[in-house]
Amino acid sequence: MAANEVYQYSLISALVDGVASNGIPISQVLCHGDHGLGTFQNMVGEMIVLDGEVYQMKADGSVVHVDPQTTITPFATVAKFRPTTTTKANLKDGKKDLQALLDKLHPESRNHFLAVRLDGTFKKIEFRTAGGQCRPREGMVDVCSRQTTHTFEGERGTVVGFRCPEYVMGINVAGDHLHFISEDRERGGHILGFETEGEVGVGVAVMSRFHLDLPRGDEEFDGARLVKDEEGIKAVEG
Amino acid sequence: MAANEVYQYSLISALVDGVASNGIPISQVLCHGDHGLGTFQNMVGEMIVLDGEVYQMKADGSVVHVDPQTTITPFATVAKFRPTTTTKANLKDGKKDLQALLDKLHPESRNHFLAVRLDGTFKKIEFRTAGGQCRPREGMVDVCSRQTTHTFEGERGTVVGFRCPEYVMGINVAGDHLHFISEDRERGGHILGFETEGEVGVGVAVMSRFHLDLPRGDEEFDGARLVKDEEGIKAVEG
Repeated sequence: MAANEVYQYSLISALVDGVASNGIPISQVLCHGDHGLGTFQNMVGEMIVLDGEVYQMKADGSVVHVDPQTTITPFATVAKFRPTTTTKANLKDGKKDLQALLDKLHPESRNHFLAVRLDGTFKKIEFRTAGGQCRPREGMVDVCSRQTTHTFEGERGTVVGFRCPEYVMGINVAGDHLHFISEDRERGGHILGFETEGEVGVGVAVMSRFHLDLPRGDEEFDGARLVKDEEGIKAVEG
Repeated sequence: MAANEVYQYSLISALVDGVASNGIPISQVLCHGDHGLGTFQNMVGEMIVLDGEVYQMKADGSVVHVDPQTTITPFATVAKFRPTTTTKANLKDGKKDLQALLDKLHPESRNHFLAVRLDGTFKKIEFRTAGGQCRPREGMVDVCSRQTTHTFEGERGTVVGFRCPEYVMGINVAGDHLHFISEDRERGGHILGFETEGEVGVGVAVMSRFHLDLPRGDEEFDGARLVKDEEGIKAVEG
């Protein structure tokens, strides 16, 4: 796969349906990208892939630097991210300002995918971490109803994210989906809200190729109903 | 791309939205598959890709053997089809019997893609061909409202098709989507109904990798709303 193409393993609707017992080694995912998001077996924590390194951000607030050879993922989205647009921006109203900035930088990209990265200091950042399934097949919305949220101030770090077009809702998350990790790699999770402290570095790439890899020989996936719970996905992943 | 992976250019919802002025040379599509379906610039006719050869089946009943270097497509789905299951079947109640046969052969494949091919004699086969847009951006449902239908009896030929999982509705056509071409390559189109004459050869492959290639630098695509018209797609493509 070339730079700035999306690789995805499994479906967000599979997580909604609680399909998270199995997966592929993260090392296989890293063949396709060095920048990304995802989760881990049984939805234990949030995954961030940053410069090819993989971190598991757990509900207890700890962050584990993951060995991609020995750890599997039931869902991940990655790209070999090479920003084609770079700028600096003050995003006081975090997600909303970022959304407006991306719309302005790439007005033609509504029907394409975007990869985005922010580097800098965050005056305030709130993120959540999913604690994992209580039982096999427990759905993502229920798992996230027990999420732990953390708020930090004056935190330096990096936001890794994607914007997906509306038509992939159910396959992935339509709209902007952002994870954060602190510079010291000790805190992070799925972003609920943020405010930058002054300007942060912004890197963006438009992506027009999407590669979907479905679980093979996975009875849990094969048997899943995969009903598109648009409201549920928006509630916990938007 | 390896055998039995799906390659798709653009989206069915783009056709629904009338995005058919531009495209890529069919030769580029053939790099990814030798078996497939699609349409042509301005939705003039139905495309079938059979053993790497491309045919344009027009509304006047004629079939043109297409030069893939000089012809573009605004939408196509192909695979390097290498059947992993082969059998013979008498499909008296055409599409319904084929659906039941595929369910029986691959009960685990509901959330995956299938490629299918039938070879034999068709006691009766009814197909349609879209005549093309009357104006740029005319939507697929309107184009197909003027479709020409043809019914033939005792026709030898080949059915090329795909089954897509429910969750790709709008990106592609959920369910079974079949095109036909006669053995003499002189008649064919999008299948509305059929009945086999005795047994026909059936080849099937389950596919778990899906590669989506979006139009780049295409203002028509970039500006399209791409509203998912599920009923419209089912009505004209199901």
